[in-house]
Amino acid sequence: MIRPGLVLLSGKAVGKITEEHIRIAAIVEIIHNATLLHDDVIDEGKRRRGAPTINSLWGNESAVLLGDFLLSRVFKMCVDLEPGVIKVIAGAAARTCEGELRQITQKENLQLSESEYIEIITEKSAALFRSCCYLGGLLAEASERQLEALGEFGHNFGVAFQMTDDLLDIIGDESKTGKTLGSDVNKNKLTLAVIHLLRTVGESGKIGVKEELNAGGRSREKLVKMLKQHGSFEYVRSRVQEFVAKAIGSLRDLEESEAKDVLIETARFVEGRAV
Amino acid sequence: MIRPGLVLLSGKAVGKITEEHIRIAAIVEIIHNATLLHDDVIDEGKRRRGAPTINSLWGNESAVLLGDFLLSRVFKMCVDLEPGVIKVIAGAAARTCEGELRQITQKENLQLSESEYIEIITEKSAALFRSCCYLGGLLAEASERQLEALGEFGHNFGVAFQMTDDLLDIIGDESKTGKTLGSDVNKNKLTLAVIHLLRTVGESGKIGVKEELNAGGRSREKLVKMLKQHGSFEYVRSRVQEFVAKAIGSLRDLEESEAKDVLIETARFVEGRAV
Repeated sequence: MIRPGLVLLSGKAVGKITEEHIRIAAIVEIIHNATLLHDDVIDEGKRRRGAPTINSLWGNESAVLLGDFLLSRVFKMCVDLEPGVIKVIAGAAARTCEGELRQITQKENLQLSESEYIEIITEKSAALFRSCCYLGGLLAEASERQLEALGEFGHNFGVAFQMTDDLLDIIGDESKTGKTLGSDVNKNKLTLAVIHLLRTVGESGKIGVKEELNAGGRSREKLVKMLKQHGSFEYVRSRVQEFVAKAIGSLRDLEESEAKDVLIETARFVEGRAV
Repeated sequence: MIRPGLVLLSGKAVGKITEEHIRIAAIVEIIHNATLLHDDVIDEGKRRRGAPTINSLWGNESAVLLGDFLLSRVFKMCVDLEPGVIKVIAGAAARTCEGELRQITQKENLQLSESEYIEIITEKSAALFRSCCYLGGLLAEASERQLEALGEFGHNFGVAFQMTDDLLDIIGDESKTGKTLGSDVNKNKLTLAVIHLLRTVGESGKIGVKEELNAGGRSREKLVKMLKQHGSFEYVRSRVQEFVAKAIGSLRDLEESEAKDVLIETARFVEGRAV
């Protein structure tokens, strides 16, 4: 499980971790948790991190308000930070929300293209990873070029992460992911594997795929079989590998260090999840 | 209809209104709108300001995400403000959310006392009004004492406003309030009139009141009749008048001005709503 706040720290794991690093990592982690609380309301998720969700325990009211409470606390925690740091955090939070909104406007759009999908996951997920990596550099007084490299790493890593997460939503094992799966297909949110399938089956095949997508709570066996047959899972894996390679490539000009190794290891971990 | 952002401006209506006033009024207004979006999801509100709510038009998903989006934009809009101003806004947002959370923990608590009720509405509503009035003063470079007076005005005004709003939730006319009413009783949230009734009917009468409260979607006629008989509406009105008087009294040391008159008029307007 990747936690954005920890990603912020991971690059500095062997350097000097200051109070400020911990505070900012906590802020990002709280933003992330607030969005998960609301996501679970929206997706009617029953489990998260191996435990029952707040909405399943105490209802949607509590989950919505607790998410708002966390966001308002983040806002308060940011007051004393450097303006440059607040700007990055506030920008990341806004992009995350914009991406989520954009995603629901595209719900049920069976024409969604791969590039539109990548734009959506860039906003709703990768922007937060980019900001974490950038902030880690900013706190360590990295140069402009180093900051750019770290941001690029975060962006590509974030896209790979979300592609994998969306793949696991279809073929994952709830006991391993610790959260409710299947909601993308159930809610008619197109993700990369299905986009690939729709592109590959040709006009005549699309009807069958659409039928499976609209099948409501029914078993996904037939859809999974089609995705396998048409190499859609393989395609997602190859795209994840590309983005992980790009992420690692972004770090090429940074000097070798244990911190750099930790970032590379984290990216490789995401690649491993997709297999 | 009282709009917090406009309250911030009302005291300065005849003075110099700067770009900063408008920006901060907009920020408060957006926070307020974000909380309304989420409130309407929680209370299943169908109408707001005379129009269909977002949740009724486009579902809970869109309403939750749009609220989050607005909060994240506020966060971004605050980045360039004075730290002192951000502190007040962030503090108000956090108190609003805390009050909302506290309110749902007290849902179905038929023992809720009047003072606990006032504490809850102070957090969830009056704190935002206090901050608006305080901010108006802060931007006009008011003295500490003037700021305290304005804050006290906002606090008492906010309590009176929320008491009235809760009264209208029981006896209001949807065509006048422009929003769905009755949700407090339906969701078993105790407000002042019912707290007064439960306190007045004595142990034996409580059973009948509780029966009415638990009657689900049934007509509220019998409950309203009991509230009338026991003078509960009158009691709320008298409490509203007290808080309006306290609000106006808070301004006593401020020199006479058109700005002060506007604040007093706004407070009197709230009193008029309760009749």
